[in-house]
Amino acid sequence: MADKNWLNENEKWLKTIVSLVDTELGQSAKTELYDAITKMSGEKPTTVDSTSTHQIVLATTENQNLISHQLFDRLNDEGYIIRTITEHEKPTILLSAKTDKGLLYASFHFLRLIQTKQHLGSLNIVENPKNQLRMINHWDNMDGSIERGYAGKSIFFENNAFTTNLERIKDYARILSSVGINAISINNVNVHTVETKLITDEFLPDVATVANIFRSYGIQTFLSINYASPIQLGQLTTADPLDPTVRNWWKEKAKDVYRFIPDFGGFVVKADSEHRPGPFTYERNHADGSNMLAEALEPFGGIVIWRCFVYNCMQDWRDRKTDRARAAYDHFKPLDGQFYDNVVLQIKNGPMDFQVREANSPLFGAMTKTNQILEFQVTQEYTGQQIDLCYLISQWKEILEFDTFAAGAGTPIKRIVDGSTFENKISGIAAVSNIGNDDNWTGHQLAQANLYGYGRLIWNPDLSTEVITDEWVRATFGHDPEVVEHVTAMLFDSWPIYENYTSPLGVGWMVNPNHHYGPNVDGYEYSVWGTYHFADNEGIGVDRTVSSGTGYTAQYFKENKEIYESLEICPDDLLLFFHHVPYTHKLQSGVTVIQHIYNTHFEGVEQAIGLMERWSLLKDKVDEERYQNVMNRLNQQIENAKQWRDMINTYFFRKSGIKDEKNRTIY
Amino acid sequence: MADKNWLNENEKWLKTIVSLVDTELGQSAKTELYDAITKMSGEKPTTVDSTSTHQIVLATTENQNLISHQLFDRLNDEGYIIRTITEHEKPTILLSAKTDKGLLYASFHFLRLIQTKQHLGSLNIVENPKNQLRMINHWDNMDGSIERGYAGKSIFFENNAFTTNLERIKDYARILSSVGINAISINNVNVHTVETKLITDEFLPDVATVANIFRSYGIQTFLSINYASPIQLGQLTTADPLDPTVRNWWKEKAKDVYRFIPDFGGFVVKADSEHRPGPFTYERNHADGSNMLAEALEPFGGIVIWRCFVYNCMQDWRDRKTDRARAAYDHFKPLDGQFYDNVVLQIKNGPMDFQVREANSPLFGAMTKTNQILEFQVTQEYTGQQIDLCYLISQWKEILEFDTFAAGAGTPIKRIVDGSTFENKISGIAAVSNIGNDDNWTGHQLAQANLYGYGRLIWNPDLSTEVITDEWVRATFGHDPEVVEHVTAMLFDSWPIYENYTSPLGVGWMVNPNHHYGPNVDGYEYSVWGTYHFADNEGIGVDRTVSSGTGYTAQYFKENKEIYESLEICPDDLLLFFHHVPYTHKLQSGVTVIQHIYNTHFEGVEQAIGLMERWSLLKDKVDEERYQNVMNRLNQQIENAKQWRDMINTYFFRKSGIKDEKNRTIY
Repeated sequence: MADKNWLNENEKWLKTIVSLVDTELGQSAKTELYDAITKMSGEKPTTVDSTSTHQIVLATTENQNLISHQLFDRLNDEGYIIRTITEHEKPTILLSAKTDKGLLYASFHFLRLIQTKQHLGSLNIVENPKNQLRMINHWDNMDGSIERGYAGKSIFFENNAFTTNLERIKDYARILSSVGINAISINNVNVHTVETKLITDEFLPDVATVANIFRSYGIQTFLSINYASPIQLGQLTTADPLDPTVRNWWKEKAKDVYRFIPDFGGFVVKADSEHRPGPFTYERNHADGSNMLAEALEPFGGIVIWRCFVYNCMQDWRDRKTDRARAAYDHFKPLDGQFYDNVVLQIKNGPMDFQVREANSPLFGAMTKTNQILEFQVTQEYTGQQIDLCYLISQWKEILEFDTFAAGAGTPIKRIVDGSTFENKISGIAAVSNIGNDDNWTGHQLAQANLYGYGRLIWNPDLSTEVITDEWVRATFGHDPEVVEHVTAMLFDSWPIYENYTSPLGVGWMVNPNHHYGPNVDGYEYSVWGTYHFADNEGIGVDRTVSSGTGYTAQYFKENKEIYESLEICPDDLLLFFHHVPYTHKLQSGVTVIQHIYNTHFEGVEQAIGLMERWSLLKDKVDEERYQNVMNRLNQQIENAKQWRDMINTYFFRKSGIKDEKNRTIY
Repeated sequence: MADKNWLNENEKWLKTIVSLVDTELGQSAKTELYDAITKMSGEKPTTVDSTSTHQIVLATTENQNLISHQLFDRLNDEGYIIRTITEHEKPTILLSAKTDKGLLYASFHFLRLIQTKQHLGSLNIVENPKNQLRMINHWDNMDGSIERGYAGKSIFFENNAFTTNLERIKDYARILSSVGINAISINNVNVHTVETKLITDEFLPDVATVANIFRSYGIQTFLSINYASPIQLGQLTTADPLDPTVRNWWKEKAKDVYRFIPDFGGFVVKADSEHRPGPFTYERNHADGSNMLAEALEPFGGIVIWRCFVYNCMQDWRDRKTDRARAAYDHFKPLDGQFYDNVVLQIKNGPMDFQVREANSPLFGAMTKTNQILEFQVTQEYTGQQIDLCYLISQWKEILEFDTFAAGAGTPIKRIVDGSTFENKISGIAAVSNIGNDDNWTGHQLAQANLYGYGRLIWNPDLSTEVITDEWVRATFGHDPEVVEHVTAMLFDSWPIYENYTSPLGVGWMVNPNHHYGPNVDGYEYSVWGTYHFADNEGIGVDRTVSSGTGYTAQYFKENKEIYESLEICPDDLLLFFHHVPYTHKLQSGVTVIQHIYNTHFEGVEQAIGLMERWSLLKDKVDEERYQNVMNRLNQQIENAKQWRDMINTYFFRKSGIKDEKNRTIY
C-alpha cells in the first residue's frame, strides 16, 4: 500500500489505465501496472476510457498523438517517455515508447515513481538504457543444485529435468524485467553430461517453454553449451573448430534450436577454462573456437558470449613467475580483430575471481576491435554467501567509474562496456544471479538489494549508489525515516566491513578451498589455482610490478600502470595485490601493514556487531519474518567475523612475531 | 610352484592327505591343503590311505593315536601341533589340534612351511595364538563405498544391498584365516541410515549368508550398530540405556539376530564420537551404554566392542587448554570396574588417530578391571593411502613392545592386550582392513604385506618383523635372493621414509582435511578437530607436559611420564608431540629442529627415489603386472614426497626465516 498522504494527492491519476498496445509485451505492461496499482491504491483501475477525469495511457509512438513523434528520436528501441500532459482535455500520464518492450520498462518505471512517492502531476521523463545487453547468468545444474548458489535450489531444474513450477519462473521474469534485465542464460557455464543435452530435442521443448515466459517480459533466453557437444551429442570424433564436419554439425544444431525458439539469444561458452573442453585441444585459439559458433548462429541473429576466464588451473605453486592475473589479457589481447562481429567476450570485473577487493581487469579497453561485456557476480561466492551482509553496488559502481585511459583520460570502464568508446556492435554487462527457490529468493533478505541494484546500475551506470539504494530501501521497507536511515547505512557500511575482517589490502584468497566460506589463510597458498599471498616471517604480497615482479602492471594503460607500479602511490587497498612488502611497511594511511591487519580485523568484528545492533533498533518497524531472517544471519555473520579476525590475526602474529600495538587478544 | 630343489627333497611328503575330521572346518582345512599342494607340487595328492610311503594326517586330539594326548594340554582351543613322525610304519606328518579350527590353522601353517622351503622331515611345532580376539574391522558402507578405502569398492555391498559375488567373500575368508584372523565386523562404525537396518529381517538373511562363509573358515561375524537404533528402527522415543523399554528392545533385537546367526560375535559400537549418537544424550556414561547392549547379548555369548575414540570434535582452536590426546583416558579411566564382563573397550594405538608417528595410548594398562583390545589401522589413511609405500609392521611391532610399566617394568602393550597382565576375560587386537574389490585386493601390491603381517603379528606379537617380512616376501615373490633382498629392504625402509617427508617429530596432522592425502601444514590448525601444531615464527609443538602444558603426560605410568615430561630425554621422534620448542632447539641427534625438518624432507624425497630405483632392479624378476603396479605407485609417491618436501620446507622457512644450512632449494 502506498503512503496515505501521497495517495490523497495523487490517486486521481490511478483510476484509469488505457492501453493502446495489444501485443504480448503490451499486455504484460498493462497487467503489471494494473496489478500493482490495485495493490498500492487499494482500488482496481478501469481499463477503458472512462468518465474518470484523469487517465494513464500506454501507447507506442505510432498509436499516440498526444506528443510529437519527433520526441521519439531521442529514444532507442528500449527507451521510453513518461510525461504528464495536463493541457489535454483529460489530464493524461502518457507512457510511450518506440516498442512494446520500451512500454514495459516505462510501466515499471512508473510504478517505481509511485513507490518512491514522486509527484505525478508534472512528469517529464526520457529514458534509454545505457547498456545494450543487460544479462543474468545462471549457474544452475539440472540436478537442481546451483554452483555458488546460496538461496536454495534451482528454480528451473530438479532431478535432471525442468521444473513444472512455471509460476515461479514467471515471477522471476517479472523481477528481472522490472529492473530492465533483457537477457538470461539458464544453465551453468560448467556444462555437465545432462546439461549438454539442453540443445537437443529431448530438452528444447522445455527450453522453449521457459523462453516463452521470459519473452513475455522482454527477456531473451541463452544457453551455456558444452564445447565438446559434437563429440558427446553428435558422435563425431573431434570438436576441432576448423573441421568442416564440426562446423556443419553446429550449423545444423543452430537450426534445431531456432526451430524451437525463433528469438533464441545464443550460446554462453566457458571453454579451455578449469578443465572445460575448448579449441586448445586442437591447437586452435579462442577466435577459431568462438567464430565457428558465431557462424552457425549468425543466420538467426544469435550471438556467442565467450568467457575470458581462462588461466592455468594446474599451476605449480613453486612457480612464482606465472601470474594468473595476467592470463585473460595474455590469452585474448593478441586476438583483437580476429573475432566475428556476433562474438562478444565476457570479462570478469577483476583479473582473479570476484574477490572482495582486487584490481580491475586490464582487458577493459585493451581490445578496440572486439565486442566485450563485463561480468559481475551478484551471488556472494567470496563475499559472505548471503550469510554475511555485503552490498555490492558500491563495489560495482567503483569498478564502472574506474578510468582505464583506454581512449585518453575519461574512459571509465562503464564507457568501454556500454560500447560507446569503440562503437562496438554488441556491448553490455552480465552477472551471475543470486537467487534460488528460497521463499525470499535470495536467502538473506537484504541480498535482494544486490539483484535490484545490479539491474538499475547496468540500466544506467551513471546512477549514484545513493539513488539506487534509496529506491530499493523505500520500495522494500517503506518510508519510515528511521528504517530508511538504518537500512541504508547498513547496506552502505557492509562492503567495507566485510573487507575489514577478511583478506587485507587486496591480496584475496584467504578462504576455505572449494566452498569458499570462512577464513583459511593458507587455503589456496600451496594449490594449483594460481592464488598466492607469499606471506613469510618478514612480509606479504604479490609482486606484480614490471621492475621486479610478474610484469602484470604493464597490461594497464600508462597512467594506471605508473600508479600500480609505484610502491609510494599504489592505493593502500590494492597494495598487496601489486607489491610484496615487509609487515613494517608504512601505508599511506600512516599505519604499518601488520598494524593495519590487526586494526581492521578488530574493527571489522565491532562493525559487524554494529550492524546487528542497528538492525535490532528496527524490531518493531519491520515485520517479524524479515526481521528474524536478517537478525539470524547477522548473528551468524558476527561469528564468522570473529573466526576471520582471530584466524587472520593469529596467523600473522605467529608468522611475524610482531605484537599488536594495542595489546588486544591474539591467539 | 614350489622351489625345485626343495621339491625333489620333500615331495614324498605331499602325495597323500588323510583327514580324519569331517566337520565344515575340517573340510576347509583339507581342501586348502589339497588345493595348495596341487598347485605347489604340480600333482594332486590322494586323499585316502594309499600305497604311498608317506602321508599327511589331519586329526583332532581324540581321533588320532600317533602322539600322546597329554601333549595337547599345552594347546588352547585354537592351537595346534605339527609333527613329523618317522618312527611310524608309514612316515607321517601329523597336523593335529583340540578343535577343527586349530586344524585349519595347522594346515595354513604347514603350507607356509612349504612356501618358505622348510625341511619337512623333522617338524615339531606347537603353536597357540597369543591373542584371543584377532579381528578385522571393515568401514564399508552399503552404497559400496569404503570410508578410508584405497583399493576399490566394498566386496560386501553395492547399491545399498549385499553383493552377489560370494566367491570373492570366500576368498577373503581364506586370506584372513590363513593368517589366523578369527573375527570380522563387516560394516562401517559410522552406521548410516541403510546400514542401521542390518540388524533387521530385511538384511539379516544376507548377513547370515556372509557369516556362513566366514564360519567355514573359523571367523566370527560382528556388526557395527547404530546406538540410536531403538528410535530409528523401533519407533521408540528414546535410546536411553537405563530405560526399560530400550533395554527390552535390544534384548528382543539380540534374539532376532541370533535366530539368523547362532554364533554371531556381537556388536561394534562407535558412540558419542564424531557426531554419532550415544548415551551422553541421556546423561548416561559409556558403561551404561555398553552394559545395556552387553546384557542383551549375554544370553547368546555375544560381546560388545565399544570404541574409545571419543573426544570433542567441535573444539575451538583458540582454546589451548583442551587436549584431544587426553580424551580417551579422561572419558574411560574413571569407569574402570563398571563394565560388564562381556564388554570390551577398543583402544586405538595412539591417543590421536593413526598418525605416522604419535605417542602410544596411555589407556593401555590403565584400566585393570576392564577388557580391552587394541585397534590398529591397516588401511593407510594417514600413511600414504596405498599410493605411497608404508610398511606398518615395523610401527606396530614398536607399539606392541612399548613398556607401559602398568604392572612394573616389563609390561609391554602386547602383554596388556593379550589379557595376560590383568587376566582379562576378553582380549586381543582389531584393525581396519585395507582391502577392496581391486583385483590385487589392496591397490598397491606391496600393501598386501600389511594385511599379512597384521595377521601374523597379532597371532604372535613375539614374532620379529624380520621373520614376518621374510615369510611374506618369499610366499609372494619366491626365493630369488635379489628379489628377497630388495623387496625386504623396501618394506623395512618405507615407514621411516614416509615419516621423513611428512609431519616431523611426532607432531602429526599436516595433511589435507577430509581426504587426508598430501601435505597441508595448516590444514588442521584452525579447525574444530583438536589437532594443532602451534607453529609460530619462533617455534612449534604441543606442550603436553604437566609443568607447563595440558598435563597429558600424567596419564602415563611414572617411568614414561618422566621421560615424556622431560625436554632433555623425551625421544626426538616424539618431541613435538610433547613439547613446544624453538626451531633452534637442539635435538638429541645433535641438529636443530629446523635443520632436522629440512634434512629429513630433502632426504625423504631422495629415499623415495631410492625405493623406485631399487624396484627398477627387479624389472625382469617380477611379472609385468605386479612390476608396473608397484612402479606406477612409486612414481606417484615420488611426486607426493616432493610436494611434502617443498610445502613443509617452504612453510617453515617462510615462518622461521631460518635458512637451510646446506642452501638447498626452498621456495
